Amino acid sequence: MAGITAAGGFKASGVSAGVKYIGKKDVAVVYSERDASVAGVFTTNTVKAYPVLLNMERVKAGKARAVVVNSGNANACNGPRGMDDARAMTAETARLLGVAEERVLVCSTGVIGQPMPMDRVIPGIGEAVKALSERGGRDAAEAIMTTDTELKEYAVSFELDGRTVTVGGMAKGSGMIHPNMATLLCFVTTDAAVDPEFLKECVAYAADRSFNMVTVDGDSSTNDTLLALANGVAGNSEIKAGGEGCGIFRDVLTEVCVFLARAMARDGEGATKLIEVRVVNAPTGQDARLAARSVASSTLFKAAVFGRDANWGRIICAAGYSGAQFNPDAVDIFLGDIQVARGGQGLSFDEEAAAAVLSGDTVNVLIDLKEGQYEAVAWGCDLTYEYVRINGDYRT
Amino acid sequence: MAGITAAGGFKASGVSAGVKYIGKKDVAVVYSERDASVAGVFTTNTVKAYPVLLNMERVKAGKARAVVVNSGNANACNGPRGMDDARAMTAETARLLGVAEERVLVCSTGVIGQPMPMDRVIPGIGEAVKALSERGGRDAAEAIMTTDTELKEYAVSFELDGRTVTVGGMAKGSGMIHPNMATLLCFVTTDAAVDPEFLKECVAYAADRSFNMVTVDGDSSTNDTLLALANGVAGNSEIKAGGEGCGIFRDVLTEVCVFLARAMARDGEGATKLIEVRVVNAPTGQDARLAARSVASSTLFKAAVFGRDANWGRIICAAGYSGAQFNPDAVDIFLGDIQVARGGQGLSFDEEAAAAVLSGDTVNVLIDLKEGQYEAVAWGCDLTYEYVRINGDYRT
Repeated sequence: MAGITAAGGFKASGVSAGVKYIGKKDVAVVYSERDASVAGVFTTNTVKAYPVLLNMERVKAGKARAVVVNSGNANACNGPRGMDDARAMTAETARLLGVAEERVLVCSTGVIGQPMPMDRVIPGIGEAVKALSERGGRDAAEAIMTTDTELKEYAVSFELDGRTVTVGGMAKGSGMIHPNMATLLCFVTTDAAVDPEFLKECVAYAADRSFNMVTVDGDSSTNDTLLALANGVAGNSEIKAGGEGCGIFRDVLTEVCVFLARAMARDGEGATKLIEVRVVNAPTGQDARLAARSVASSTLFKAAVFGRDANWGRIICAAGYSGAQFNPDAVDIFLGDIQVARGGQGLSFDEEAAAAVLSGDTVNVLIDLKEGQYEAVAWGCDLTYEYVRINGDYRT
Repeated sequence: MAGITAAGGFKASGVSAGVKYIGKKDVAVVYSERDASVAGVFTTNTVKAYPVLLNMERVKAGKARAVVVNSGNANACNGPRGMDDARAMTAETARLLGVAEERVLVCSTGVIGQPMPMDRVIPGIGEAVKALSERGGRDAAEAIMTTDTELKEYAVSFELDGRTVTVGGMAKGSGMIHPNMATLLCFVTTDAAVDPEFLKECVAYAADRSFNMVTVDGDSSTNDTLLALANGVAGNSEIKAGGEGCGIFRDVLTEVCVFLARAMARDGEGATKLIEVRVVNAPTGQDARLAARSVASSTLFKAAVFGRDANWGRIICAAGYSGAQFNPDAVDIFLGDIQVARGGQGLSFDEEAAAAVLSGDTVNVLIDLKEGQYEAVAWGCDLTYEYVRINGDYRT
């Protein structure tokens, strides 16, 4: 079983409360049978939704029992009422679960600046708590979707300390073209016992290599949130920085996040292709990251991929304005297996073969800066007519 | 007469050399009958086209006689041959005009990474020099266009020192959505006598309030160039910093650049509307500029404008991730005359009236941060199906 209930000791559910559309699942609850270590990464936007502000306070304690989530309304820019509504959602969830209110987190995603329809959300929470199940991960993953067209779930198990440990997660988010507002929400659960401080480190590490490589830092929605809960039901000795299993746990958590981040890029609004940009031999890790992200988020390159046009000039140009330091006259560029530029200059290549590479469902771009030994990978998707259609008429 | 030959002592021309398409004008020459003061602003992209590198050197002398321009090929990423070709273009122009080669500048715009077809460009320069005329401004403005659908020319005259002084210009550029590669070229000529150092100051001032507000700093093409030439034919005493006429000259130059920058935004690839974003009462000028540019370049807001959806949440969100400092709970937002948010919260407004505002050919957005006294204006355009079509198939 993939997803948020793959790890032991977690239940989840997703129900239709009619937050925005009739019939779509839109309220989810994730519940841990024990207090779990918790860590989160939140949007850097100056304008933060009320649930984000509340979670930022509550994760400081390092422990949580449940998360309640709604789609259809972002609960952002609603004045003091917005914070009251966010608190009320956690209070109702806590009351029904019989846990402390401060142990409940809350996430919202959807339209900004419209008051939460609490008359529908509160009964929805009641339904969702009743529906909690060890097999409810899929319903929860459905309930957090907005313009997503695919469920995003994943889980990995491994042996640690003689126990089987599982890390599973779900995510939503698909406004990946210039991802300035389509909210990313990601929830990861694990039955490993993990020290809260080390969990925090691992979540930041994983976010940097996954979601932060599909979204440009500082260019994030009012609601972006990644939460990880570790409840210790697997029975391993607690994983701490530098202790046994710390490396493998961090890597597995990262693997789960990378899988979900790639799934988000592939499901970008209107996308027909995943674009994976790998920058190698950069002078620093930051240069590699800047260049990779800049190319993966260039609308002109994304449009060229949609048009199957091997326009590598847009690749080197986007790397050039990224802020990354490199020598333009050293750069090699490959589209799939085809080298299109060497030493900063175009090669004559088989345009038909290149168009074939651009026709695949994943387009791999390799940029060799030849100046160092750092690398980074970023993900994006093509820019299509469908993206314009979706975003020209999202709210109404 | 508007444009590059409105000022006295300038000739221009534009001819078809077949650089990329048959029949389209694609080589232009601008010629001053006297040595002119010259100043320029160039792309900040790490990857600079060869003409840009050459011009950056040559403007240091502060004097120029002519500019040769081609469209259809950017002469970027072509190795050592690229610089040879750029030099050869200026050498041929200088030879035919009988002026020093170092007094000739060169600009290119078009596809990256393909060698210049010098066998067609060189004869084109010959034709263009033959065609030079005091009425050739319009032909030159046509010859520098790529995906532009409208000519961009403007001129303003004023009295100074008992003389009539004229400032005129032409520009090309229309890839305004996430403007990472569609080259901006702008040429301004004036018959005023202007000290080269002061001209440099004025050009930087004007660029900051015009082209830099339609394109995000650092997010520029390999070829972006703004050049201003002042030949003194009007017979005024030389304008210097702090001297007579310095304020009005700076303001008129800025007005010409703002007109051309707005025209570029309105002619954005696939655009149906101009978006003008004004941020007022910001704590600093930089905060005002960051917020205005971020909103004007948000693809989600641009798509909403195309869909006539008064989705003001995308406005406050884009201001929020811009890096500008402000209190989200203080912000007022207006679409045209309609206030859609007060104190960071949505107001109930007439959706039909808002849709009518969004149906106009110019959409005005006003953001009042209520924290200071600085303001800035930025320009963009809506994101349409046509943008995707154009950029999905530009090169081929």
